[in-house]
Amino acid sequence: MSLTQVSAAKVFGGWHKQFSHASSSNHCDMRFAIYLPPQAEKQNVPVVYWLSGLTCTDENFMQKAGALRVAAELGLAIVAPDTSPRGDDVADAPDGAYDFGLGAGFYVNATQTPFAQHYQMYDYVVNELPKLIEQHFPVTTQRAISGHSMGGHGALMIALKNPQRYASVSAFSPISQPMNCPWGQKAFAGYLGNDQQQWRQYDSSELMKASPVRDHIPALVDQGEQDNFLVEQLKPEALVDAAKLVDYPLTLRMQPGYDHSYYFIASFIEEHLQFHARCIIDNS
Amino acid sequence: MSLTQVSAAKVFGGWHKQFSHASSSNHCDMRFAIYLPPQAEKQNVPVVYWLSGLTCTDENFMQKAGALRVAAELGLAIVAPDTSPRGDDVADAPDGAYDFGLGAGFYVNATQTPFAQHYQMYDYVVNELPKLIEQHFPVTTQRAISGHSMGGHGALMIALKNPQRYASVSAFSPISQPMNCPWGQKAFAGYLGNDQQQWRQYDSSELMKASPVRDHIPALVDQGEQDNFLVEQLKPEALVDAAKLVDYPLTLRMQPGYDHSYYFIASFIEEHLQFHARCIIDNS
Repeated sequence: MSLTQVSAAKVFGGWHKQFSHASSSNHCDMRFAIYLPPQAEKQNVPVVYWLSGLTCTDENFMQKAGALRVAAELGLAIVAPDTSPRGDDVADAPDGAYDFGLGAGFYVNATQTPFAQHYQMYDYVVNELPKLIEQHFPVTTQRAISGHSMGGHGALMIALKNPQRYASVSAFSPISQPMNCPWGQKAFAGYLGNDQQQWRQYDSSELMKASPVRDHIPALVDQGEQDNFLVEQLKPEALVDAAKLVDYPLTLRMQPGYDHSYYFIASFIEEHLQFHARCIIDNS
Repeated sequence: MSLTQVSAAKVFGGWHKQFSHASSSNHCDMRFAIYLPPQAEKQNVPVVYWLSGLTCTDENFMQKAGALRVAAELGLAIVAPDTSPRGDDVADAPDGAYDFGLGAGFYVNATQTPFAQHYQMYDYVVNELPKLIEQHFPVTTQRAISGHSMGGHGALMIALKNPQRYASVSAFSPISQPMNCPWGQKAFAGYLGNDQQQWRQYDSSELMKASPVRDHIPALVDQGEQDNFLVEQLKPEALVDAAKLVDYPLTLRMQPGYDHSYYFIASFIEEHLQFHARCIIDNS
């Protein structure tokens, strides 16, 4: 598989680059961003995968989170995929809604027409993208995963389903129980159909409840108390209940005064990256 | 004068807020952003004014520079005005060009029709905005000023013309000699007319050459060596020559590999804010 470089900028002594490539999972061109810290010039470095929220592309996190400074200090690469397939022949929400279709792939493999053809974001993030990254860049196979909102759902869900692939997982303001909130119900019905049994495989609270101890990996979640979406969409209490049930190593911190924005992410991203760096070392 | 709050978000324990207000200088509504660090809840704090570059608003720096973390550590407020007047009755470039008119006020007081009516950005940044800030927020009258590209020109030019008002000045990739580059010539001709004598009062290299020792304040400039605009538009050598001529306390650093983007600014903003904090203390 070949990559086409879209941009390159030096940042904190390392390099932020964007690439596009033909995706075998999504059957369209996909773009992702990678930050390679200065350490990557001399050795292979671990990778933190970042999954963004609704309406985002590969750019939001890289530009707004202030994460690259910390990644440069810790010697971590960061990879940020897009949030959905893109292109003229990729189906979108009929009404152009922000919370379904383009920019809103929800990190699932769609089974419903017309979305099944391109919306295979789960396979893309779990399999295709890491394979590509590990083939083309100076990285190890040590991985962690994190994300925000829809991407927080994606990170938790993917880590719970693939604990052997990640040293740790973290999330900001995740959609913690998509089966039980308007954003998740709309997306799951559209991508997966109306059979709620099909939804369970992508619901982090359900997955956590069923998670055996041997599959537990360290999990850190931050949630702003002034987040406008907290009560209706995010429901972190479902995650807390699930973690209690199976004694999952989840640290969930309610952060007074903070909202749903990148200003919140920026305020705590250093702690998340330090957490992942520690878990990667502990796991080696 | 009254302020209308547009937004508020907690960041690094402090608050980022946006306000709009009727501007007596520009005769239109203006929006600005302010970051108040946690220290401002207990005491008045100094202010760093940030002037953005072409096409920017009050948002770019606050979202992308990673500055708020450092401001929170150092106990500095940051104020970012918009880059031009705005509104339906504000004249724009006839062709909608990105480098003149809306988003491109160049921090001068326009004298030419139809721009003179609203484009009084020099008065706005030097007088009206600080007065407003010092009236409404828990800040001292200790000020520093910084900016990027067109805003780097603005910061240097304003500090050189008003050295008593600022403890220090810094810039990223400034338009160092606007009289002698396409961006500056277009803007100065459009806002000030064709008499180049009128341009000199806003040209940092000219101002520095004429600057008496008693008016010197510490100046720090960073310039990326891979900046696409370096040779044609930015011309830092003019600033270096001027500084040599009058022994101006200018530190200009060429940074290998860096471009014109916010990734460059983010990489060095901590050093700039530390520089301003030191100068403010030295000046007290």
